[in-house]
Amino acid sequence: MNEKTIKVYKDLMGANAEWAQKTRDLLKKKKVVMLNLIGSPGSGKTVLLERLAKDCSDSLSFSVLEGDVETTKDAERLQKLDILASQLLTGGACHLEAKLVHYALKDLPLDELDIVFVENVGNLVCPAEFDIGEEAKIAVLSVTEGEEKPSKYPLLFNEASAVVLTKTDLLPHLNYKIGVCMEAIKDVNGSIPVFQVDALNGNGVEQWHEWIKERVRAC
Amino acid sequence: MNEKTIKVYKDLMGANAEWAQKTRDLLKKKKVVMLNLIGSPGSGKTVLLERLAKDCSDSLSFSVLEGDVETTKDAERLQKLDILASQLLTGGACHLEAKLVHYALKDLPLDELDIVFVENVGNLVCPAEFDIGEEAKIAVLSVTEGEEKPSKYPLLFNEASAVVLTKTDLLPHLNYKIGVCMEAIKDVNGSIPVFQVDALNGNGVEQWHEWIKERVRAC
Repeated sequence: MNEKTIKVYKDLMGANAEWAQKTRDLLKKKKVVMLNLIGSPGSGKTVLLERLAKDCSDSLSFSVLEGDVETTKDAERLQKLDILASQLLTGGACHLEAKLVHYALKDLPLDELDIVFVENVGNLVCPAEFDIGEEAKIAVLSVTEGEEKPSKYPLLFNEASAVVLTKTDLLPHLNYKIGVCMEAIKDVNGSIPVFQVDALNGNGVEQWHEWIKERVRAC
Repeated sequence: MNEKTIKVYKDLMGANAEWAQKTRDLLKKKKVVMLNLIGSPGSGKTVLLERLAKDCSDSLSFSVLEGDVETTKDAERLQKLDILASQLLTGGACHLEAKLVHYALKDLPLDELDIVFVENVGNLVCPAEFDIGEEAKIAVLSVTEGEEKPSKYPLLFNEASAVVLTKTDLLPHLNYKIGVCMEAIKDVNGSIPVFQVDALNGNGVEQWHEWIKERVRAC
């Protein structure tokens, strides 16, 4: 058998890891932080970024890579607030991969930025499995999703460096035990900070914003 | 080269389709309907089934296959209501595949059942891609997820035979335009019925329950 006919396929995760490393090198060189926001569809990821734009655009220069299966709706929402946002369409895939993120990142004006947020495809499972070269994964979970999600989807909460528990304005209207959710998070990842926020109205967001700024200062 | 050393791998979707067909044959033989509930984590799929158990267990004999990445929490919730429920754990995977569903289905007392519900893994993307031999897919979407999800995750809404729009009890507390969501559904799938329900309190569930019973009568 002629050796030249042997096709070698590298494992896909290996190729993903290479692109993730390229992204990490680029971010390090440009002194830019990249955070990967992961949560269910409708967990409030875009509202979190809109709130950051409203409260911190004077003190923080940031850009957003919006991951979605279809549509440019989320990028449009951020552009209305003068945030530079690109839309990354997966065309059916349920997560972002490192190569697509790398190409979109390279096109951003990194010399002018402190931080890039990647809003991953709305999904609690698959995005957690793909390293995209981020400095940290952030789990975004809304109180309307129930208390037990960290136990049912442990990988994300294990991988994440922080949890943002959103939509706390709805707590008075839900039969939701916040202590049960906090315990479930602690069972999966004992050391993780949890920020309880009502980003729509801007309540409780200060600590979350301070945590972001601390990452930028440490970069 | 010895022919015996040649390994043949059938494409995975092909194998999935074979198991789905086996399930369809079994359901037809046993005159049992199988509905595949697909929605985000926390969209209210289990509450829908709990409501059905409370309101219709006299008129409908049903069982549930609960798909999750981890934990048996959902099956336990249904067993408390005397519903026979099995838990299908994917061990990390973001959707149910036909083979696992087939084996779990075969173990149910199909001669005594009108209908089997499969509650798929909480995820708006991947489960819609996998035929598990169901008669129909049902998209479960909560009003807390925002109006635009049918546009952003079109495959599920295109594949579904009905949409259940859940948590309508929270509408007074949300800035949610139900007409915008209805338009988004219509854009993707013009002919699909949409049931607006508050399953927690049992409001608006009658038409949804009647639709289920009609599927059973037609079986």
